[in-house]
Amino acid sequence: VKIKVAWIGKTKSPEIQALTDEYLKRLTRYADIEGSTLKDETALLKLAAKDARPMRYALVMLDSTGKQFSSEEFAGWLRDYRDRNSTPLLFAVGAADGFTQHARQSASLTLSLGKMTLAHELARIILLEQLYRAFTILEGHPYHLGH
Amino acid sequence: VKIKVAWIGKTKSPEIQALTDEYLKRLTRYADIEGSTLKDETALLKLAAKDARPMRYALVMLDSTGKQFSSEEFAGWLRDYRDRNSTPLLFAVGAADGFTQHARQSASLTLSLGKMTLAHELARIILLEQLYRAFTILEGHPYHLGH
Repeated sequence: VKIKVAWIGKTKSPEIQALTDEYLKRLTRYADIEGSTLKDETALLKLAAKDARPMRYALVMLDSTGKQFSSEEFAGWLRDYRDRNSTPLLFAVGAADGFTQHARQSASLTLSLGKMTLAHELARIILLEQLYRAFTILEGHPYHLGH
Repeated sequence: VKIKVAWIGKTKSPEIQALTDEYLKRLTRYADIEGSTLKDETALLKLAAKDARPMRYALVMLDSTGKQFSSEEFAGWLRDYRDRNSTPLLFAVGAADGFTQHARQSASLTLSLGKMTLAHELARIILLEQLYRAFTILEGHPYHLGH
């Protein structure tokens, strides 16, 4: 399955950019994946094109009030999605103040990385790391065991 | 209240080091805080000196199976602790494979940043950001609102 990871707003932090690039690079070993910087939520909703038929993307939005998975459960979710669908996945990380209620209604899944409100640029890194971890779990790579 | 944030193992990533330094610097505006790199869990337990009287530190260990707070709840916990205790806080982030059961028994609180297993170096950054966010919440600084 194709994966796009989109975030709102260009980072000014060279460290965040470097970590983003690093995880995206590692992920290309396992998936057809690309990152995308969007201007605002409107641009995201346009990209997601919820009403297009066939669906252009299944939208997974990050929100602290969403569904929490363990890393193993997230890997299982990703495996099941991949096995049953060919529609590309679009993961989206909001701006500093998150997503509007309106935007959240477009999501196929609202994913929570924990109850705490994360800095949105850190949330992006955590999401990429969890995607990488999920693929290593599915492929039996020992990364998840701390090796 | 004094705060020490300790992690096991020196990072090889200049980005993780830079983000660690950045959040520690921001935190010094609000707290008497320092970071500390420890060699292993044994060094942590020695530093924590659980059986010393008076207690040298109240130990807060990060573990995905621990207690989850929202950012506001974590700020409230920090405020209550500060108001009722003078024992310094020692926050500890484990190595890639987490803490042993033995070590977890020394903790006053086991804190979870979410159900997912985080890369330990990212967990350190998230913890520092949540401490910073907590102090801005307590001080009424608009950081938490995304400004």
